[in-house]
Amino acid sequence: MYYVEPIARLIRQLSRLPGIGPKTAQRLAFFILKMEKRQVIELANAMVRAKDEIGYCSICCNLTDRDPCNLCRREDRDHSIICVVEEPKDVVAMEKTREYKGTYHVLQGAISPMEGIGPEEIRLKELLARVKDGGIREIILATNPDVEGEATAMYIARLMKPLGVKVTRIARGLPEGGALEYVDEVTLLKALEGRYEI
Amino acid sequence: MYYVEPIARLIRQLSRLPGIGPKTAQRLAFFILKMEKRQVIELANAMVRAKDEIGYCSICCNLTDRDPCNLCRREDRDHSIICVVEEPKDVVAMEKTREYKGTYHVLQGAISPMEGIGPEEIRLKELLARVKDGGIREIILATNPDVEGEATAMYIARLMKPLGVKVTRIARGLPEGGALEYVDEVTLLKALEGRYEI
Repeated sequence: MYYVEPIARLIRQLSRLPGIGPKTAQRLAFFILKMEKRQVIELANAMVRAKDEIGYCSICCNLTDRDPCNLCRREDRDHSIICVVEEPKDVVAMEKTREYKGTYHVLQGAISPMEGIGPEEIRLKELLARVKDGGIREIILATNPDVEGEATAMYIARLMKPLGVKVTRIARGLPEGGALEYVDEVTLLKALEGRYEI
Repeated sequence: MYYVEPIARLIRQLSRLPGIGPKTAQRLAFFILKMEKRQVIELANAMVRAKDEIGYCSICCNLTDRDPCNLCRREDRDHSIICVVEEPKDVVAMEKTREYKGTYHVLQGAISPMEGIGPEEIRLKELLARVKDGGIREIILATNPDVEGEATAMYIARLMKPLGVKVTRIARGLPEGGALEYVDEVTLLKALEGRYEI
């Protein structure tokens, strides 16, 4: 290595982040060295504090700093409807429609045989427990419209059928192969309105 | 905001970094939340420690964790030759040629009237002091082959002429408009060998 250890260490650590190659890590490292000390501490603290304070909601499995999460606590939401999504960012995408008034279940992933992610690796057990507890009218499957999301939706639909709960899939207003988070609010709203029972 | 404060804060902080937009910041934030606690602390510490331990060498103005820096201390380097570069990463690029045996001076920038960076904003005063102290045979100007680097080289050449020191510019083996750090070692070596007096 040509850099002194504190710089080399910082570049190594930054390279661990997804999408950050060696050149980008180097650029970020020099930027951090030129930042004010106070700002560097703020950035470092934000990482450690987020990791310390954020856990999973024991009801919907979304990331939260209190348990149950703010959304699961809200009395103005319809707790008899669960919208099942893959990731926390998908909850944000759904909330931006300002139309959906039910609750969520965040799987924290999708079934993917290619990547060795089976039904046990995602938060399905927790979803099943919520439905078995009763009081659920409808489950809206809002996993991504790609191979993994589709497979996950089918798996959940089969799992729920014996329980007699209505299971719907958001409509294919979503572009094929796209990701929920990049869809504009109107398309997502249309997809939600056009949901069909499976 | 749709995210709870610890996550929103982390996304905000990450968005301050160069080239990191809101979507990338969000992706990095969720990745950090899925990292092991130990790894997050390592990353955060690497930032704060680098900022704490790294300063400028009082001789060459490169980033260093000791003063003078390792390179300025080395007795097997020719201290009568100074290679002037813009940034610390350019020193690394030069060192990779394994041919250059002189010392460096890191300007920490380039003159850029467009961005309001004048001669006083870069480490020129320190370079002038080194030359006036005597014992310097040659100054190799290895600023980038772009408008700012060229202007900086010309400015330094004019500044050094009255002092009777030999001033050379690395040859235009470098692609026009390129940046020193992306040039392969062979091209950079050729440019170094073909340097001409100005």
